[in-house]
Amino acid sequence: MRHVLSALVQNVPGVLAHVAGMLASRGYNIDSLAVGETESPDLSRMTFVIVGDEAVLDQVRKQLEKIVTVVRVDDISAQDYVERDLMLIKVEAPEGSRSEIRELTSIFRGRVVDVSPTEMVIELSGQEKKIEAFIDLMRPFGILELVRTGRIAMVRSITRPMVKGMSPPIDHLAAQ
Amino acid sequence: MRHVLSALVQNVPGVLAHVAGMLASRGYNIDSLAVGETESPDLSRMTFVIVGDEAVLDQVRKQLEKIVTVVRVDDISAQDYVERDLMLIKVEAPEGSRSEIRELTSIFRGRVVDVSPTEMVIELSGQEKKIEAFIDLMRPFGILELVRTGRIAMVRSITRPMVKGMSPPIDHLAAQ
Repeated sequence: MRHVLSALVQNVPGVLAHVAGMLASRGYNIDSLAVGETESPDLSRMTFVIVGDEAVLDQVRKQLEKIVTVVRVDDISAQDYVERDLMLIKVEAPEGSRSEIRELTSIFRGRVVDVSPTEMVIELSGQEKKIEAFIDLMRPFGILELVRTGRIAMVRSITRPMVKGMSPPIDHLAAQ
Repeated sequence: MRHVLSALVQNVPGVLAHVAGMLASRGYNIDSLAVGETESPDLSRMTFVIVGDEAVLDQVRKQLEKIVTVVRVDDISAQDYVERDLMLIKVEAPEGSRSEIRELTSIFRGRVVDVSPTEMVIELSGQEKKIEAFIDLMRPFGILELVRTGRIAMVRSITRPMVKGMSPPIDHLAAQ
């Protein structure tokens, strides 16, 4: 089972080392970790994707909560949530394959951010499966380099009924 | 000075703890860290943004290279590069302010990924300054939650002359 945990931590030196050390010493299987700023300069948010059963999740959560610099831990995957990952991918793109790569990029709602006579860099955000499908499509062209951020997630708003005159959420589209 | 380091590391448990521990014990000021998968399942890539002079950068680089599980370290900011960060932001969006938020989102090439009668979740990727400008624009509406991935970066292709019939790189546009 895949779980997404979101931890609000104090923005102080050493907090990442503390958290990473705890996870490593206990041998938890962390699939992805993203650390980024929040709306407050004093706080950072760490998003973990953990593979394991409920018992493992519970342990990780309790261990995180024990760390003084960890303010709050939420199990996002227990709720309805939006998940995103960002990738930069550099592929071989000689003149003959450039238009095909551009078309695939457009279908996946990606963006060409750099181009040279032989290569292209594409930016793509979305759910993990969408990003992996795009990577598979790029393989035949030749992947030169690939960087991903690790996943971030946010719980959807609780009240979901549609409001008159509003267009529907485009998440399902954007996520393919 | 702001430096972007990209480290290719073995995808083994404990490597993040090792790297984070080294950085913390030496008190380096890490502005951002992203850890994500690469084109190879055996390797992960860590992107650091470090604030400091050349001497600090050199120390961090040498310390990273000493770690056995670190395969390679590149100073991306020494070259011409593309940098991206991803954000999910939840803002207060009652009916009266929804269209204005949608318009700002569209100008910044963001995407509305969730909506409720009172709130909206927007996804936005781009350079740090673009993301920060958007956050500032959202403040008056009321920011409820904000998650960021931390920055990733990729060196541009070396051969930059334009090829006949190609559209120019849209990076400058996308980055506002």
